[in-house]
Amino acid sequence: MRVEIWSDIACPWCYIGKARFEKGLAAFAHSDEVEVVHRSFELDPNQAKGETAQVIDMLAQKYGRTREQAQAMEANVASNARSEGLGYLVEGRDHGNTFDIHRLLHLAKARGRQDELLGLAYRAHFAEERSIFEAEVLVDLAVAAGLDADEARAVIADENAYADDVRADEREAAELGANGVPFFVFDRRYGVSGGQPAELFTQALEQAWQGREIITPLAEDAGVCDADGACEVPPSGARA
Amino acid sequence: MRVEIWSDIACPWCYIGKARFEKGLAAFAHSDEVEVVHRSFELDPNQAKGETAQVIDMLAQKYGRTREQAQAMEANVASNARSEGLGYLVEGRDHGNTFDIHRLLHLAKARGRQDELLGLAYRAHFAEERSIFEAEVLVDLAVAAGLDADEARAVIADENAYADDVRADEREAAELGANGVPFFVFDRRYGVSGGQPAELFTQALEQAWQGREIITPLAEDAGVCDADGACEVPPSGARA
Repeated sequence: MRVEIWSDIACPWCYIGKARFEKGLAAFAHSDEVEVVHRSFELDPNQAKGETAQVIDMLAQKYGRTREQAQAMEANVASNARSEGLGYLVEGRDHGNTFDIHRLLHLAKARGRQDELLGLAYRAHFAEERSIFEAEVLVDLAVAAGLDADEARAVIADENAYADDVRADEREAAELGANGVPFFVFDRRYGVSGGQPAELFTQALEQAWQGREIITPLAEDAGVCDADGACEVPPSGARA
Repeated sequence: MRVEIWSDIACPWCYIGKARFEKGLAAFAHSDEVEVVHRSFELDPNQAKGETAQVIDMLAQKYGRTREQAQAMEANVASNARSEGLGYLVEGRDHGNTFDIHRLLHLAKARGRQDELLGLAYRAHFAEERSIFEAEVLVDLAVAAGLDADEARAVIADENAYADDVRADEREAAELGANGVPFFVFDRRYGVSGGQPAELFTQALEQAWQGREIITPLAEDAGVCDADGACEVPPSGARA
């Protein structure tokens, strides 16, 4: 079974959801038959490249709240993160354009290191006050994930590298009806939206596993030889 | 899109259904993006190997009919076949065990000649009064389909060759709920049972094509950052 997870690196629920999904997956009986693929989704594609802001300031401005209200929103998300054993900085995080990081995650996918890089990038962004919007931080993360520094640097520098892959993922998300992230899709049949509890992911994996074999009939049966060997003559409508 | 077709070589509706499906596929806009895989199904696995009977006699005996009634049943099927431009012998066909032919079709699949061999075997059986229950007839058909004669002969002689593949196909048919053939499955999501009219196959292909992207949600959304960049706090039930 294949699970595709659309997420944005700047999305707190994606960070939390990844940990909860992994916990849910560990409790799933067929976990070793599950392949996980991460897909790109930008929450704020219009954020100017090269410009960053502090997350709290951005939230306050975007939603017309005071800094204190924005901090309370973040503190709530932080408590969810910490309940999963994840570090979470309420203050000090940068908000910026994530397109380059998504491109780099596609390089990592091609090298079999996508999950590693995504995990490291989440930690850097949410728990370590390192700016994932700086090229050299990204190169460091790429190397820590097992990628080649020069190759990572070249991909970051070439704005066309893996750009089509990022856009293809985003187009697919839209086609599948995703309007937010994280968005988990099981065998392109079933979906779960959000950083849900681990137990819900285990249940979803079990349902999707059972549902792999469910075939929806597109027509009434006609012109069938049955397992008993009998061949029925179809109703006249079924004759060409 | 992948279409799997479960069928038995001795099944008249499979023979007719193959022709109708192909006609329906030819009228489908994305036909060049469709991969067809044939899968094994035995309508009469308990028929003793090496023993054959005349089809009309078998039908009369099996259903407690007179030979004339059995001929009338067959004549009806024959008229369906002929309306598709297919030859069909009402008298003179053998009934027998099809396990070896299914094994040989798996060899043909491995060599990329499955569709060719199936088409030739149907024609031999239904239109040409050649007994597909004789090893040398099967070897001739295999060669005509582009297979190597010695390899085909070796597979026919070794009753274990591709036997597991035949049984795996049959187990899958049972898991998918097929109780007769032909059984057409589109991307393991949608099914059509029977040798239906060509137009119905075209419609089914169109429906399955549209439906490729339909994702069934397994839970209410919770813990989502939406495309607007807003991150909702989930209801308390969604907190781990």
